[in-house]
Amino acid sequence: MTRHVHDMRTGFGEPPISVANGGGGSGFVLNRELAADTLSIGRLELCRLLLMNDATYPWFILVPERPGIREIFELESGDRLSLINEIAQVSKAVGEIFDPDKLNVAAIGNLVPQLHVHIVARFHSDPVWPMPMWGRTPRYPYKAAAAAAVRGQVRQHLGGALLEIA
Amino acid sequence: MTRHVHDMRTGFGEPPISVANGGGGSGFVLNRELAADTLSIGRLELCRLLLMNDATYPWFILVPERPGIREIFELESGDRLSLINEIAQVSKAVGEIFDPDKLNVAAIGNLVPQLHVHIVARFHSDPVWPMPMWGRTPRYPYKAAAAAAVRGQVRQHLGGALLEIA
Repeated sequence: MTRHVHDMRTGFGEPPISVANGGGGSGFVLNRELAADTLSIGRLELCRLLLMNDATYPWFILVPERPGIREIFELESGDRLSLINEIAQVSKAVGEIFDPDKLNVAAIGNLVPQLHVHIVARFHSDPVWPMPMWGRTPRYPYKAAAAAAVRGQVRQHLGGALLEIA
Repeated sequence: MTRHVHDMRTGFGEPPISVANGGGGSGFVLNRELAADTLSIGRLELCRLLLMNDATYPWFILVPERPGIREIFELESGDRLSLINEIAQVSKAVGEIFDPDKLNVAAIGNLVPQLHVHIVARFHSDPVWPMPMWGRTPRYPYKAAAAAAVRGQVRQHLGGALLEIA
């Protein structure tokens, strides 16, 4: 499983260690389970942008690069503004790329306490519509080429806003 | 069911019509299903604050009082800032009142398209922890006194920020 995820990352042509856990010099370290379950796309001003390694849904995750934050209200006010703007920015890009019937946006964190926000494109035709999809379908890991295609589309739509992982 | 909800509302000593659907003169009308499933607590600068009529979880809903909005990215930038600040404000109050193990915050809307944000206090001891609880347990409507108690606590914690429904 770890090996599989590793293969996915090298499919992006980037070194897996810096992609998975590189901090911004702020003491932030990406939670290990989030790192294991996702593929890195890049970073925005506040958040790391990840692709959940489950091709069942176009499923993205934003993680504010701040150490020790579990809940939205623990963010400083400037970071809260960045978070909602990055949610909007990524949601809009995901909407344009995938043309979903609905976006699902959620900070749950019952299993992984590090604050992270899911942005998921949902379709009337998806396996569990209209139910929330967390925990309802088995994971279907990306083939490297498919993951690279999604990453490329997102990077193109976000343009200059997307930075490389430090 | 409608009758039951009506009884709950009159338990608050407020007229049900203005509580359920009063707009702010902006063309906003609360979605009928949201109105039927919830008890009104009041309003903040941007959002209507509702209590989901399900005593299984302390479960609150924020609805931006803007017509025709389905997704967060459709809100104007000033409204997005208000939304994240009101999410933080209500989350903090819910955290202080109920001392949950985790807050779950989500804009899903697969069934009710009007943009609304769930803020749910979750506990290790609750019926479906650690799963997201949407659609997993039957609704357990509040007794009028219990709903009034929750409403009173929230109003006290939010203080002057909470306005009456127009």
